[in-house]
Amino acid sequence: MSIEKLKTQMEKKWAEILKDNQLIKLILDGTKDRRVYALYLAETYHYASHNAKNQALVANKLKTTNSKEINYMKYCLEHALEETGHELMAYHDLKAAGVNVPLSEMPAPLPDTETFVAYLYYISQNGNPARRLGYSFWAESSYAYFGEVMLLAAKNMELSKAMMTFFAEHSDIDVKHAEDVERMVNLMCKTEEDFEDVAEVMNQTLELTARMLDNVAREYQKVLKNESKWNAIFNKYAPSLS
Amino acid sequence: MSIEKLKTQMEKKWAEILKDNQLIKLILDGTKDRRVYALYLAETYHYASHNAKNQALVANKLKTTNSKEINYMKYCLEHALEETGHELMAYHDLKAAGVNVPLSEMPAPLPDTETFVAYLYYISQNGNPARRLGYSFWAESSYAYFGEVMLLAAKNMELSKAMMTFFAEHSDIDVKHAEDVERMVNLMCKTEEDFEDVAEVMNQTLELTARMLDNVAREYQKVLKNESKWNAIFNKYAPSLS
Amino acid sequence: MSIEKLKTQMEKKWAEILKDNQLIKLILDGTKDRRVYALYLAETYHYASHNAKNQALVANKLKTTNSKEINYMKYCLEHALEETGHELMAYHDLKAAGVNVPLSEMPAPLPDTETFVAYLYYISQNGNPARRLGYSFWAESSYAYFGEVMLLAAKNMELSKAMMTFFAEHSDIDVKHAEDVERMVNLMCKTEEDFEDVAEVMNQTLELTARMLDNVAREYQKVLKNESKWNAIFNKYAPSLS
Amino acid sequence: MSIEKLKTQMEKKWAEILKDNQLIKLILDGTKDRRVYALYLAETYHYASHNAKNQALVANKLKTTNSKEINYMKYCLEHALEETGHELMAYHDLKAAGVNVPLSEMPAPLPDTETFVAYLYYISQNGNPARRLGYSFWAESSYAYFGEVMLLAAKNMELSKAMMTFFAEHSDIDVKHAEDVERMVNLMCKTEEDFEDVAEVMNQTLELTARMLDNVAREYQKVLKNESKWNAIFNKYAPSLS
Repeated sequence: MSIEKLKTQMEKKWAEILKDNQLIKLILDGTKDRRVYALYLAETYHYASHNAKNQALVANKLKTTNSKEINYMKYCLEHALEETGHELMAYHDLKAAGVNVPLSEMPAPLPDTETFVAYLYYISQNGNPARRLGYSFWAESSYAYFGEVMLLAAKNMELSKAMMTFFAEHSDIDVKHAEDVERMVNLMCKTEEDFEDVAEVMNQTLELTARMLDNVAREYQKVLKNESKWNAIFNKYAPSLS
Repeated sequence: MSIEKLKTQMEKKWAEILKDNQLIKLILDGTKDRRVYALYLAETYHYASHNAKNQALVANKLKTTNSKEINYMKYCLEHALEETGHELMAYHDLKAAGVNVPLSEMPAPLPDTETFVAYLYYISQNGNPARRLGYSFWAESSYAYFGEVMLLAAKNMELSKAMMTFFAEHSDIDVKHAEDVERMVNLMCKTEEDFEDVAEVMNQTLELTARMLDNVAREYQKVLKNESKWNAIFNKYAPSLS
Repeated sequence: MSIEKLKTQMEKKWAEILKDNQLIKLILDGTKDRRVYALYLAETYHYASHNAKNQALVANKLKTTNSKEINYMKYCLEHALEETGHELMAYHDLKAAGVNVPLSEMPAPLPDTETFVAYLYYISQNGNPARRLGYSFWAESSYAYFGEVMLLAAKNMELSKAMMTFFAEHSDIDVKHAEDVERMVNLMCKTEEDFEDVAEVMNQTLELTARMLDNVAREYQKVLKNESKWNAIFNKYAPSLS
Repeated sequence: MSIEKLKTQMEKKWAEILKDNQLIKLILDGTKDRRVYALYLAETYHYASHNAKNQALVANKLKTTNSKEINYMKYCLEHALEETGHELMAYHDLKAAGVNVPLSEMPAPLPDTETFVAYLYYISQNGNPARRLGYSFWAESSYAYFGEVMLLAAKNMELSKAMMTFFAEHSDIDVKHAEDVERMVNLMCKTEEDFEDVAEVMNQTLELTARMLDNVAREYQKVLKNESKWNAIFNKYAPSLS
């Protein structure tokens, strides 16, 4: 395998998601309801609050007896450092978009968000330590695929730049990060099996992200039927959106 | 909430799975190919090899300052003890069914099996420690729902009792275990939120199990197209099944 | 090496401890101050509250691909089950001896108790999983060595049986447990290196226990100078002992 | 408490160690045997190989809901990053000093080194997350206390600069690091109890380091009696030192 083949697989997986995902469908159908964005931001807040932590945990698996693993360990810690606190951008955007919920009252993550987070901790601590690069590989370039959908959502829901700082931040730092990840994949993947380990985690984290987005869409249907925990939050902290 | 409402939710979830699941569909459609069973057993072997371990980990979260948590801790360790080594029954059945693969050459778990395992470790170590009861709650009575499908598979694939020891073992010990779990749910769930925590894990572990079964069905499609890692295994260790 | 040589090393280590330990010296010198026993019981409470947990963690390290490791895994979980909640006996004895402190106000463990606990968690999770047997090996027979000192303390401090349930419990169950440990050491130690791993942990956990007892003696000196956190506890909950 | 009082406690503890420690005594007595330095470097290699890892683990305990904990999380990851791979300097020095042992044949850490490492992992994962600062607090300025002893060892054992890169590196970066630690202690310690938590870990990690050095001295006595694992290593890889 190679970086090019990883990219081909990634593009194929994104094409499936863009075609089938329920949240993306909701946006492409032109929803103007900013509560959809709010639900998405809350789950983004939750998974993002674990990214630096599970990234740093990879370091614990590395044997620093050779320069390859030391380089990878430094990459993991540097990357964890850069991601630290980014979840607060998602929370900032939630408040900017009109949902002024205090962190202490934020509803717990949806089951598919927790599943995604669980998988990231697991692959960071078990098996080939290069595997977590499979997540970074697509995450760093996701805005090439997901960006257009986000811009459509922004237009229809009238989202200002101040409500999209998490999105903006992660599309800007993109290029350097994507290069770093590719360099690391090439450093750590010496066998076909290494590449397959990374490819599997790439595909599965994309899949689990898509399921998280589906869960957001299902939760929105519950909100419409007044059956979600979020109804109380919107009523209390975002009366103008309800 | 109550035990009764948990059961109602469980029945609803099982009804969805029995209707939609790709592996169940394959069996209901009358497949005679024992390789379907072999793929299912391999994933059963993988997730079952973690059950005693993640069950025992719950003990680590408990504060033994009151008799309630001490009782729950004893339950977790007793239950872990009873589950220890059960994965070898699944492996035994795999060999009895004609796939004589050594453990050292067993293919790694499918991505949705690893996701299921990851979720079990995560909920065993994070959040309300009562949550793992949500998994045991349905697992101990799953044969009431899944049993008929298994018997149809057995008939069509000509599976003898000696090829189904894992299934038999877990349908026998059923009753006592199911009572133990209900007692523990009632002991540990004092608030509506406790019940909801258990219910969420019950539904999500059923969902993740269903996705694991779907993944088995997809892997079987790959086997038919000669695109699976399992083709080499079947060729080498089960030539009569291919 | 062999069980016999392990016992010889254990006896040598106990002889050193009985000769040099500051807490044992205090008792042999005839102290009548029951606060010495109270301080010892508090640290016993603390380390004992971790014993079942770190014992159960060993299970997580085992590969259940052979009957040897499955047997050991069952032993670990059974032994953890038996130890569950035993710390409450130490707490019971503390109250029976006249220190009626609620658990919520119990002072934190002393540094050498925390070090002992830390080491047990570490060796339960890292390196040869047989190593934790080195702790059980001497712990199950410790009353042969430490018992006489305890009886002298009981006589001088006028401790009734009701104040010594932790001691009594652990001297009674002794024999069966000691046999179980020896059987497991013989099962798990196949090479000289395995025996040395177990011997090292046996010697080091004895050493760390002795340092914990030394720390109790030093804390008692602080109590005498009114410089310990325990002075406030004794004043409030055991005025008759001060 | 305050930074000043922490320093006073640290100076008192160092004074005790400089007076009583067996390894320091050996050096002050003028030993010319470079094997003493080799044994010290090997244990330094072992504990240093865990420093970045246990430092990074602190991040996992932090709740990133306020800027204080985010700052501390960044500090932990930055500090872990800076420490990554430093153990290889100790290994380099070991080879430069004439012990050309491959990493794969390096003897396991001594029991008191493993105890020190165990304690660092434990306090990094349990209790007040500020506690690990107690280790950094003295470690960053240890050369003010230990430096003179090292220079005497260097003189008597004829150690060149190329054999002391670990020592040199850690005395140079001192000043900036010491300032960072003090800033973090002041940020994270808001109550007297916070300061006491940090002070306890400062004192106990100094104590455990001293015990590790004592263990080095005892191991050297074994080398002299030809009873150490290191005798084979010195014979094979450093015949000129024996």
